[in-house]
Amino acid sequence: MRVMGVDPGLTRCGLALIETAPGRAVTALDVDVVRTTADEPLERRLRAVHAVADEWMAVHHPDVVAIERVFAQNQVSTAMGTAQAAGVVALAAAYRDIPVAFHTPSEVKAAITGSGRADKKQMTLMITRILGLQKPPSPADAADALALAVCHSWRAPMQGRVSALDAQVSRSRAGFEAKVAAARATAAADHDRGRATTVDQERARAAARGMARTKGVRW
Amino acid sequence: MRVMGVDPGLTRCGLALIETAPGRAVTALDVDVVRTTADEPLERRLRAVHAVADEWMAVHHPDVVAIERVFAQNQVSTAMGTAQAAGVVALAAAYRDIPVAFHTPSEVKAAITGSGRADKKQMTLMITRILGLQKPPSPADAADALALAVCHSWRAPMQGRVSALDAQVSRSRAGFEAKVAAARATAAADHDRGRATTVDQERARAAARGMARTKGVRW
Repeated sequence: MRVMGVDPGLTRCGLALIETAPGRAVTALDVDVVRTTADEPLERRLRAVHAVADEWMAVHHPDVVAIERVFAQNQVSTAMGTAQAAGVVALAAAYRDIPVAFHTPSEVKAAITGSGRADKKQMTLMITRILGLQKPPSPADAADALALAVCHSWRAPMQGRVSALDAQVSRSRAGFEAKVAAARATAAADHDRGRATTVDQERARAAARGMARTKGVRW
Repeated sequence: MRVMGVDPGLTRCGLALIETAPGRAVTALDVDVVRTTADEPLERRLRAVHAVADEWMAVHHPDVVAIERVFAQNQVSTAMGTAQAAGVVALAAAYRDIPVAFHTPSEVKAAITGSGRADKKQMTLMITRILGLQKPPSPADAADALALAVCHSWRAPMQGRVSALDAQVSRSRAGFEAKVAAARATAAADHDRGRATTVDQERARAAARGMARTKGVRW
């Protein structure tokens, strides 16, 4: 599976591509950082980020694009631009029918180092080790993009299993509910039949007694 | 001038097109609202908004796209999605080389009603009047998109004049600074020449006194 990791941003947007296979080590295939400057209009910056991300997807054919989830709480001044950079990368993937997954920074940290509060240094150390790199990836945005991709490759099977379990539970529940519904329907039908029989018997008895539709007979 | 106004959003994204000409009333040409549902993945929702906005630009050839500026402070839960919707519309414009302008909600309210704190009702009333519509535009997102476009058409010439003045000031300042620099260079050259003369004179005097490079002579 080829995973494209994206550390979104307008000033620097980290892109990374890794390859994974069951029982094999994760391999880094490519990293890049798209840079735009604050003196360019916003739409030009978004276009630059989109163009490079789209080119990457065309060249590398990732099976999935993993993007860092941006929160409005963090760094309010740059959060909107970061979210928009993430948005145009997701858009490029959507037009190519490549699935997109979002992971929070703490999910990525937890996946790579075991701690959701790991610092930059620890993250860089671990990602260098995991990917068996000769030297730490640089700049930091490239390392973050690699971490995103590795995080996804590790979380995805787990998420897949959870989804499969969820689906199984849903199926079991649906089966159970169908059985309950069927049992209820049968019971109701029996009841109706029972009632009908009773009513018929009452009618027969009433007729026998010469008084059709006697008050007190219910149906 | 054809102005496309955009009230960005994922659940509802308002689009409007107006036409303006110097000394003529503003005319509404088209409005539309793109809707996506929260059960679709984010990238699909962005694609839907982008596709319709891009189609609009292809059909209507706006001279400029005016988009509401989104702040992280407002409605944190939806701000990121709204910013991303704004981002993909700006992206579509960037690829078509259509200039993009952003206006804050209070700029739009001030332009349309004279007050940056006008409420929805007042905005709808004024936009209906300004555009001479038979009935208020609906839903609210369409009215907001029309307001954005009208706001831009009124602010743009002013912004243009401000930019022109800014450019003029920059040119004047550059001219002044060039003059100052030239004056300084001349003064420095004169000074250097002066100093050289002084040094030569000192040397000559020193030589005359038979003591070349006397301590105390500085150059």
